[in-house]
Amino acid sequence: MKFFAFWRSLASFRVRIALNLKGIVPDEIVDVNLVQGRQREEAYRKVNPQMVLPALIDGDGPVLFQSLAIMEYLDETHPNPPLLPKEPRARARVRGLAQIVACDSHPLLVPRVREYLEHELHLDEPTRLKFIQHWIGAALTALETNLANSKETGRYCQGDQITIADICLVTQATGAGFYKYDTTPFPTVRRIVETCMQNDAFARAHPLKQPGAPASV
Amino acid sequence: MKFFAFWRSLASFRVRIALNLKGIVPDEIVDVNLVQGRQREEAYRKVNPQMVLPALIDGDGPVLFQSLAIMEYLDETHPNPPLLPKEPRARARVRGLAQIVACDSHPLLVPRVREYLEHELHLDEPTRLKFIQHWIGAALTALETNLANSKETGRYCQGDQITIADICLVTQATGAGFYKYDTTPFPTVRRIVETCMQNDAFARAHPLKQPGAPASV
Repeated sequence: MKFFAFWRSLASFRVRIALNLKGIVPDEIVDVNLVQGRQREEAYRKVNPQMVLPALIDGDGPVLFQSLAIMEYLDETHPNPPLLPKEPRARARVRGLAQIVACDSHPLLVPRVREYLEHELHLDEPTRLKFIQHWIGAALTALETNLANSKETGRYCQGDQITIADICLVTQATGAGFYKYDTTPFPTVRRIVETCMQNDAFARAHPLKQPGAPASV
Repeated sequence: MKFFAFWRSLASFRVRIALNLKGIVPDEIVDVNLVQGRQREEAYRKVNPQMVLPALIDGDGPVLFQSLAIMEYLDETHPNPPLLPKEPRARARVRGLAQIVACDSHPLLVPRVREYLEHELHLDEPTRLKFIQHWIGAALTALETNLANSKETGRYCQGDQITIADICLVTQATGAGFYKYDTTPFPTVRRIVETCMQNDAFARAHPLKQPGAPASV
Protein backbone atom coordinates (compact mmCIF):
# COMPACT_ATOMS: atom_id res chain seq x y z
CA MET A 1 0.00 0.00 0.00
CA LYS A 2 1.34 3.42 -1.03
CA PHE A 3 0.02 6.50 0.77
CA PHE A 4 0.46 10.02 -0.63
CA ALA A 5 0.22 12.55 2.17
CA PHE A 6 1.56 15.71 3.76
CA TRP A 7 1.96 16.53 7.42
CA ARG A 8 -0.28 19.61 7.33
CA SER A 9 -3.06 18.14 5.17
CA LEU A 10 -6.13 17.58 7.35
CA ALA A 11 -7.59 15.14 4.81
CA SER A 12 -4.34 13.12 4.96
CA PHE A 13 -4.65 13.24 8.76
CA ARG A 14 -8.08 11.60 8.49
CA VAL A 15 -6.78 8.69 6.44
CA ARG A 16 -3.73 8.35 8.69
CA ILE A 17 -6.01 7.92 11.72
CA ALA A 18 -8.09 5.33 9.86
CA LEU A 19 -4.96 3.39 8.85
CA ASN A 20 -3.73 3.45 12.46
CA LEU A 21 -7.09 2.32 13.85
CA LYS A 22 -7.11 -0.58 11.39
CA GLY A 23 -3.51 -1.46 12.19
CA ILE A 24 -2.48 -0.97 8.56
CA VAL A 25 1.09 0.16 7.92
CA PRO A 26 1.55 1.42 4.33
CA ASP A 27 4.57 0.00 2.51
CA GLU A 28 5.49 3.49 1.40
CA ILE A 29 4.47 6.99 2.42
CA VAL A 30 5.09 9.57 -0.28
CA ASP A 31 5.45 13.12 0.99
CA VAL A 32 3.75 15.63 -1.32
CA ASN A 33 4.71 19.05 -0.01
CA LEU A 34 1.66 21.29 -0.31
CA VAL A 35 3.57 24.34 0.93
CA GLN A 36 5.98 23.99 -1.99
CA GLY A 37 3.13 23.27 -4.42
CA ARG A 38 4.41 19.78 -5.22
CA GLN A 39 0.84 18.56 -5.71
CA ARG A 40 0.82 20.42 -9.01
CA GLU A 41 3.97 18.77 -10.35
CA GLU A 42 3.76 16.17 -13.10
CA ALA A 43 4.76 13.28 -10.81
CA TYR A 44 1.75 13.76 -8.55
CA ARG A 45 -0.64 14.84 -11.30
CA LYS A 46 -0.18 11.38 -12.76
CA VAL A 47 -1.28 9.90 -9.45
CA ASN A 48 -4.16 12.27 -8.80
CA PRO A 49 -5.07 14.66 -11.61
CA GLN A 50 -7.16 16.66 -9.17
CA MET A 51 -3.86 17.67 -7.50
CA VAL A 52 -5.21 17.26 -3.99
CA LEU A 53 -4.25 15.01 -1.09
CA PRO A 54 -4.51 12.30 0.01
CA ALA A 55 -4.27 9.44 -2.47
CA LEU A 56 -3.81 5.75 -1.79
CA ILE A 57 -2.70 2.91 -4.03
CA ASP A 58 -3.61 -0.53 -2.73
CA GLY A 59 -1.94 -3.33 -4.67
CA ASP A 60 -2.16 -2.82 -8.41
CA GLY A 61 -4.52 0.15 -8.16
CA PRO A 62 -6.29 2.09 -9.48
CA VAL A 63 -5.50 5.10 -7.32
CA LEU A 64 -8.00 5.83 -4.59
CA PHE A 65 -8.81 9.48 -3.91
CA GLN A 66 -10.94 11.65 -1.58
CA SER A 67 -10.45 11.02 2.14
CA LEU A 68 -14.02 9.93 2.92
CA ALA A 69 -14.04 7.47 0.02
CA ILE A 70 -10.66 6.09 1.10
CA MET A 71 -11.82 5.62 4.68
CA GLU A 72 -14.93 3.76 3.55
CA TYR A 73 -12.73 1.61 1.30
CA LEU A 74 -10.46 0.77 4.23
CA ASP A 75 -13.52 -0.05 6.31
CA GLU A 76 -14.90 -2.37 3.65
CA THR A 77 -11.60 -4.16 3.01
CA HIS A 78 -10.40 -4.26 6.65
CA PRO A 79 -13.63 -4.53 8.65
CA ASN A 80 -12.06 -4.62 12.14
CA PRO A 81 -12.45 -2.43 14.05
CA PRO A 82 -15.44 -1.01 12.13
CA LEU A 83 -15.50 2.72 11.47
CA LEU A 84 -19.22 2.85 10.81
CA PRO A 85 -22.12 1.48 12.87
CA LYS A 86 -24.33 -1.26 11.40
CA GLU A 87 -27.77 0.36 11.48
CA PRO A 88 -28.65 2.53 8.43
CA ARG A 89 -29.89 5.54 10.42
CA ALA A 90 -26.81 5.50 12.61
CA ARG A 91 -24.60 5.18 9.52
CA ALA A 92 -26.39 8.14 7.95
CA ARG A 93 -25.84 10.24 11.05
CA VAL A 94 -22.14 9.35 11.18
CA ARG A 95 -21.68 10.09 7.50
CA GLY A 96 -23.66 13.32 7.83
CA LEU A 97 -21.50 14.55 10.71
CA ALA A 98 -18.35 13.62 8.79
CA GLN A 99 -19.65 15.50 5.75
CA ILE A 100 -20.33 18.67 7.73
CA VAL A 101 -16.55 18.72 8.12
CA ALA A 102 -15.38 17.23 4.84
CA CYS A 103 -17.90 18.93 2.53
CA ASP A 104 -19.02 22.12 4.22
CA SER A 105 -16.00 23.36 6.11
CA HIS A 106 -12.62 21.94 5.15
CA PRO A 107 -12.91 22.57 1.36
CA LEU A 108 -13.16 26.29 2.13
CA LEU A 109 -9.75 26.43 3.78
CA VAL A 110 -7.57 24.16 1.68
CA PRO A 111 -4.41 25.55 -0.02
CA ARG A 112 -6.02 26.15 -3.41
CA VAL A 113 -8.77 28.28 -1.86
CA ARG A 114 -6.36 30.18 0.40
CA GLU A 115 -4.19 30.86 -2.65
CA TYR A 116 -7.21 32.10 -4.62
CA LEU A 117 -8.18 34.46 -1.80
CA GLU A 118 -4.65 35.85 -1.72
CA HIS A 119 -3.58 35.94 -5.35
CA GLU A 120 -6.86 36.35 -7.25
CA LEU A 121 -8.98 38.31 -4.79
CA HIS A 122 -5.98 40.12 -3.23
CA LEU A 123 -7.43 39.89 0.26
CA ASP A 124 -5.14 40.87 3.10
CA GLU A 125 -4.11 38.38 5.76
CA PRO A 126 -6.65 39.41 8.44
CA THR A 127 -9.50 39.17 5.91
CA ARG A 128 -8.34 35.75 4.76
CA LEU A 129 -8.07 34.56 8.35
CA LYS A 130 -11.58 35.84 9.08
CA PHE A 131 -12.92 33.95 6.06
CA ILE A 132 -11.27 30.72 7.20
CA GLN A 133 -12.39 31.15 10.80
CA HIS A 134 -15.95 31.86 9.68
CA TRP A 135 -16.32 28.45 8.02
CA ILE A 136 -14.49 26.64 10.79
CA GLY A 137 -16.93 28.19 13.26
CA ALA A 138 -20.03 27.48 11.19
CA ALA A 139 -19.22 23.79 11.08
CA LEU A 140 -18.27 23.61 14.76
CA THR A 141 -21.57 25.28 15.65
CA ALA A 142 -23.52 22.76 13.57
CA LEU A 143 -21.55 19.85 15.04
CA GLU A 144 -21.91 21.04 18.64
CA THR A 145 -25.66 21.58 18.23
CA ASN A 146 -26.11 18.10 16.85
CA LEU A 147 -23.82 16.36 19.30
CA ALA A 148 -25.10 18.18 22.39
CA ASN A 149 -28.76 17.55 21.54
CA SER A 150 -28.75 14.00 20.20
CA LYS A 151 -29.47 10.98 22.36
CA GLU A 152 -27.15 9.03 20.10
CA THR A 153 -24.07 10.92 21.18
CA GLY A 154 -22.05 8.91 23.67
CA ARG A 155 -18.42 8.68 24.56
CA TYR A 156 -17.90 9.33 20.87
CA CYS A 157 -20.08 11.01 18.21
CA GLN A 158 -22.18 7.89 17.75
CA GLY A 159 -22.44 5.95 20.99
CA ASP A 160 -19.29 4.40 22.36
CA GLN A 161 -17.70 3.30 19.09
CA ILE A 162 -15.10 5.29 17.15
CA THR A 163 -16.40 6.17 13.69
CA ILE A 164 -15.41 8.32 10.72
CA ALA A 165 -17.41 11.13 12.39
CA ASP A 166 -14.89 11.19 15.26
CA ILE A 167 -12.01 11.15 12.80
CA CYS A 168 -13.44 14.15 10.96
CA LEU A 169 -14.27 15.91 14.22
CA VAL A 170 -10.67 15.60 15.38
CA THR A 171 -9.34 17.01 12.10
CA GLN A 172 -11.83 19.88 12.33
CA ALA A 173 -10.67 20.75 15.84
CA THR A 174 -7.05 20.50 14.71
CA GLY A 175 -7.76 22.88 11.85
CA ALA A 176 -9.37 25.25 14.35
CA GLY A 177 -6.11 25.14 16.31
CA PHE A 178 -4.06 25.88 13.19
CA TYR A 179 -6.11 29.05 12.68
CA LYS A 180 -6.31 30.08 16.35
CA TYR A 181 -10.05 29.57 16.49
CA ASP A 182 -11.32 29.28 20.05
CA THR A 183 -13.25 26.05 20.58
CA THR A 184 -14.37 26.87 24.14
CA PRO A 185 -18.00 27.43 23.01
CA PHE A 186 -18.13 23.81 21.81
CA PRO A 187 -17.82 21.64 24.95
CA THR A 188 -19.22 18.44 23.46
CA VAL A 189 -16.90 18.69 20.48
CA ARG A 190 -13.98 19.29 22.82
CA ARG A 191 -14.88 16.40 25.09
CA ILE A 192 -15.03 13.93 22.21
CA VAL A 193 -11.87 15.27 20.60
CA GLU A 194 -9.99 14.98 23.90
CA THR A 195 -11.24 11.43 24.35
CA CYS A 196 -10.08 10.55 20.84
CA MET A 197 -6.67 12.12 21.32
CA GLN A 198 -6.02 9.83 24.28
CA ASN A 199 -6.08 7.00 21.75
CA ASP A 200 -2.66 6.31 20.30
CA ALA A 201 -4.08 5.78 16.79
CA PHE A 202 -5.24 9.41 16.82
CA ALA A 203 -2.32 10.86 18.76
CA ARG A 204 0.47 9.57 16.55
CA ALA A 205 -1.43 10.57 13.39
CA HIS A 206 -1.38 14.23 14.44
CA PRO A 207 0.05 16.60 11.81
CA LEU A 208 2.77 17.92 14.11
CA LYS A 209 4.05 14.38 14.73
CA GLN A 210 4.74 13.71 11.06
CA PRO A 211 8.16 13.88 9.37
CA GLY A 212 8.89 17.39 8.14
CA ALA A 213 6.42 19.07 10.47
CA PRO A 214 7.48 22.08 12.52
CA ALA A 215 7.22 22.10 16.33
CA SER A 216 4.12 24.28 16.10
CA VAL A 217 2.05 26.14 13.49
CA MET B 1 -41.13 10.21 4.46
CA LYS B 2 -40.79 13.99 4.64
CA PHE B 3 -38.35 15.69 2.27
CA PHE B 4 -37.12 19.26 2.84
CA ALA B 5 -35.92 20.74 -0.42
CA PHE B 6 -35.82 23.74 -2.73
CA TRP B 7 -36.03 23.83 -6.50
CA ARG B 8 -32.65 25.53 -6.96
CA SER B 9 -30.68 23.51 -4.40
CA LEU B 10 -28.29 21.18 -6.24
CA ALA B 11 -27.93 18.99 -3.15
CA SER B 12 -31.73 18.62 -3.02
CA PHE B 13 -31.60 17.76 -6.74
CA ARG B 14 -29.24 14.86 -5.94
CA VAL B 15 -31.59 13.36 -3.37
CA ARG B 16 -34.57 13.93 -5.65
CA ILE B 17 -32.87 11.88 -8.38
CA ALA B 18 -32.05 9.11 -5.89
CA LEU B 19 -35.65 9.03 -4.65
CA ASN B 20 -36.92 8.83 -8.24
CA LEU B 21 -34.47 6.06 -9.17
CA LYS B 22 -35.60 4.07 -6.14
CA GLY B 23 -39.26 4.70 -6.91
CA ILE B 24 -39.79 6.38 -3.54
CA VAL B 25 -42.46 9.08 -3.36
CA PRO B 26 -42.14 11.18 -0.17
CA ASP B 27 -45.39 11.66 1.76
CA GLU B 28 -44.61 15.35 2.04
CA ILE B 29 -42.20 17.72 0.33
CA VAL B 30 -41.49 20.84 2.36
CA ASP B 31 -40.32 23.80 0.32
CA VAL B 32 -37.56 25.76 2.10
CA ASN B 33 -37.00 28.88 0.03
CA LEU B 34 -33.25 29.54 0.00
CA VAL B 35 -33.69 32.75 -1.98
CA GLN B 36 -35.85 34.15 0.83
CA GLY B 37 -33.48 32.80 3.50
CA ARG B 38 -36.14 30.50 4.96
CA GLN B 39 -33.43 27.98 5.90
CA ARG B 40 -32.43 30.33 8.71
CA GLU B 41 -35.93 30.56 10.21
CA GLU B 42 -36.73 28.81 13.47
CA ALA B 43 -39.01 26.24 11.83
CA TYR B 44 -36.21 24.84 9.67
CA ARG B 45 -33.45 25.32 12.23
CA LYS B 46 -35.34 22.84 14.39
CA VAL B 47 -35.17 20.34 11.55
CA ASN B 48 -31.56 20.98 10.55
CA PRO B 49 -29.56 23.29 12.82
CA GLN B 50 -26.93 23.58 10.09
CA MET B 51 -29.53 25.53 8.08
CA VAL B 52 -28.69 23.81 4.82
CA LEU B 53 -30.70 21.64 2.45
CA PRO B 54 -31.70 18.92 1.98
CA ALA B 55 -33.04 17.09 5.01
CA LEU B 56 -35.12 13.93 5.13
CA ILE B 57 -37.24 12.43 7.88
CA ASP B 58 -38.02 8.76 7.41
CA GLY B 59 -40.63 7.46 9.82
CA ASP B 60 -40.02 8.63 13.37
CA GLY B 61 -36.62 10.13 12.60
CA PRO B 62 -34.11 11.33 13.55
CA VAL B 63 -33.60 13.83 10.76
CA LEU B 64 -31.16 12.77 8.05
CA PHE B 65 -28.86 15.43 6.64
CA GLN B 66 -26.12 15.87 4.01
CA SER B 67 -27.03 14.72 0.50
CA LEU B 68 -24.36 12.02 0.15
CA ALA B 69 -25.27 10.53 3.53
CA ILE B 70 -28.96 10.58 2.61
CA MET B 71 -28.30 8.86 -0.74
CA GLU B 72 -26.28 6.11 0.94
CA TYR B 73 -29.09 5.71 3.50
CA LEU B 74 -31.64 5.36 0.71
CA ASP B 75 -29.37 2.83 -0.98
CA GLU B 76 -29.02 0.78 2.20
CA THR B 77 -32.73 0.82 3.04
CA HIS B 78 -34.03 0.47 -0.54
CA PRO B 79 -31.37 -1.64 -2.28
CA ASN B 80 -32.99 -1.78 -5.71
CA PRO B 81 -31.78 -0.50 -8.05
CA PRO B 82 -28.37 -0.15 -6.34
CA LEU B 83 -26.65 3.24 -6.52
CA LEU B 84 -23.21 1.83 -5.70
CA PRO B 85 -21.32 -1.07 -7.26
CA LYS B 86 -20.49 -4.11 -5.11
CA GLU B 87 -16.69 -4.24 -5.37
CA PRO B 88 -14.79 -2.06 -2.83
CA ARG B 89 -12.45 -0.42 -5.37
CA ALA B 90 -15.35 0.43 -7.64
CA ARG B 91 -17.30 1.78 -4.68
CA ALA B 92 -14.31 3.93 -3.71
CA ARG B 93 -14.04 5.33 -7.23
CA VAL B 94 -17.75 6.14 -7.35
CA ARG B 95 -17.65 7.80 -3.93
CA GLY B 96 -14.47 9.67 -4.87
CA LEU B 97 -16.02 11.06 -8.05
CA ALA B 98 -19.16 12.04 -6.14
CA GLN B 99 -17.02 13.80 -3.52
CA ILE B 100 -15.11 15.81 -6.12
CA VAL B 101 -18.49 17.43 -6.70
CA ALA B 102 -20.03 17.37 -3.23
CA CYS B 103 -16.90 18.25 -1.24
CA ASP B 104 -14.59 20.16 -3.52
CA SER B 105 -16.85 22.16 -5.80
CA HIS B 106 -20.45 22.62 -4.72
CA PRO B 107 -19.71 23.88 -1.15
CA LEU B 108 -17.89 26.83 -2.71
CA LEU B 109 -20.99 28.09 -4.52
CA VAL B 110 -23.83 27.54 -2.08
CA PRO B 111 -25.95 30.50 -0.90
CA ARG B 112 -24.07 31.06 2.37
CA VAL B 113 -20.74 31.37 0.51
CA ARG B 114 -22.20 33.59 -2.23
CA GLU B 115 -23.67 35.80 0.49
CA TYR B 116 -20.33 35.99 2.29
CA LEU B 117 -18.56 37.00 -0.92
CA GLU B 118 -21.11 39.75 -1.50
CA HIS B 119 -21.84 41.10 1.98
CA GLU B 120 -18.62 40.42 3.89
CA LEU B 121 -15.98 40.66 1.17
CA HIS B 122 -17.96 43.21 -0.88
CA LEU B 123 -16.94 41.60 -4.16
CA ASP B 124 -18.71 42.84 -7.25
CA GLU B 125 -20.87 40.57 -9.36
CA PRO B 126 -18.26 39.74 -12.07
CA THR B 127 -15.68 38.84 -9.40
CA ARG B 128 -18.17 36.63 -7.59
CA LEU B 129 -19.12 34.92 -10.83
CA LYS B 130 -15.45 34.33 -11.67
CA PHE B 131 -14.94 32.75 -8.22
CA ILE B 132 -17.90 30.43 -8.71
CA GLN B 133 -16.89 29.51 -12.26
CA HIS B 134 -13.34 28.80 -11.14
CA TRP B 135 -14.42 26.04 -8.74
CA ILE B 136 -16.98 24.67 -11.15
CA GLY B 137 -14.25 24.40 -13.76
CA ALA B 138 -11.67 22.86 -11.43
CA ALA B 139 -14.03 20.02 -10.55
CA LEU B 140 -15.14 19.49 -14.16
CA THR B 141 -11.51 19.29 -15.22
CA ALA B 142 -10.75 16.69 -12.55
CA LEU B 143 -13.87 14.71 -13.44
CA GLU B 144 -13.20 14.79 -17.19
CA THR B 145 -9.58 13.70 -16.72
CA ASN B 146 -10.63 10.77 -14.58
CA LEU B 147 -13.60 9.72 -16.70
CA ALA B 148 -11.81 10.07 -20.04
CA ASN B 149 -8.76 8.08 -18.88
CA SER B 150 -10.27 5.30 -16.82
CA LYS B 151 -11.07 1.88 -18.23
CA GLU B 152 -13.87 1.69 -15.70
CA THR B 153 -15.86 4.47 -17.33
CA GLY B 154 -18.68 3.07 -19.42
CA ARG B 155 -22.09 4.27 -20.41
CA TYR B 156 -22.07 5.86 -16.98
CA CYS B 157 -19.24 6.96 -14.65
CA GLN B 158 -18.70 3.41 -13.40
CA GLY B 159 -19.49 0.90 -16.13
CA ASP B 160 -23.07 0.63 -17.27
CA GLN B 161 -24.81 1.09 -13.96
CA ILE B 162 -26.15 4.39 -12.63
CA THR B 163 -24.43 5.36 -9.38
CA ILE B 164 -24.22 8.31 -7.02
CA ALA B 165 -21.29 9.50 -9.15
CA ASP B 166 -23.66 10.04 -12.08
CA ILE B 167 -26.13 11.80 -9.83
CA CYS B 168 -23.44 14.20 -8.63
CA LEU B 169 -22.10 14.65 -12.15
CA VAL B 170 -25.51 15.72 -13.38
CA THR B 171 -25.92 18.25 -10.59
CA GLN B 172 -22.43 19.60 -11.29
CA ALA B 173 -23.28 20.10 -14.97
CA THR B 174 -26.57 21.72 -14.00
CA GLY B 175 -24.72 24.11 -11.70
CA ALA B 176 -22.38 24.92 -14.58
CA GLY B 177 -25.45 25.82 -16.62
CA PHE B 178 -26.80 28.06 -13.85
CA TYR B 179 -23.55 30.03 -13.94
CA LYS B 180 -23.11 30.05 -17.73
CA TYR B 181 -19.98 27.92 -17.57
CA ASP B 182 -19.16 26.33 -20.91
CA THR B 183 -18.88 22.54 -20.61
CA THR B 184 -17.69 21.99 -24.21
CA PRO B 185 -14.14 21.11 -23.03
CA PHE B 186 -15.54 18.17 -21.08
CA PRO B 187 -16.95 15.74 -23.68
CA THR B 188 -17.02 12.66 -21.44
CA VAL B 189 -18.83 14.54 -18.72
CA ARG B 190 -21.31 15.84 -21.28
CA ARG B 191 -21.90 12.42 -22.81
CA ILE B 192 -22.69 10.84 -19.46
CA VAL B 193 -24.86 13.76 -18.34
CA GLU B 194 -26.82 13.61 -21.60
CA THR B 195 -27.30 9.87 -21.18
CA CYS B 196 -28.55 10.38 -17.63
CA MET B 197 -30.93 13.15 -18.61
CA GLN B 198 -32.68 10.79 -21.02
CA ASN B 199 -33.74 8.85 -17.94
CA ASP B 200 -37.03 10.08 -16.56
CA ALA B 201 -35.81 9.75 -12.95
CA PHE B 202 -33.18 12.38 -13.71
CA ALA B 203 -35.26 14.51 -16.07
CA ARG B 204 -38.21 15.09 -13.78
CA ALA B 205 -35.91 15.82 -10.83
CA HIS B 206 -34.39 18.82 -12.66
CA PRO B 207 -34.50 22.09 -10.69
CA LEU B 208 -36.47 23.92 -13.37
CA LYS B 209 -39.21 21.27 -13.27
CA GLN B 210 -39.94 21.79 -9.58
CA PRO B 211 -42.86 23.82 -8.15
CA GLY B 212 -41.89 27.47 -7.75
CA ALA B 213 -39.07 27.33 -10.27
CA PRO B 214 -38.79 29.99 -12.98
CA ALA B 215 -38.75 29.07 -16.69
CA SER B 216 -34.98 29.64 -16.76
CA VAL B 217 -32.20 30.91 -14.50
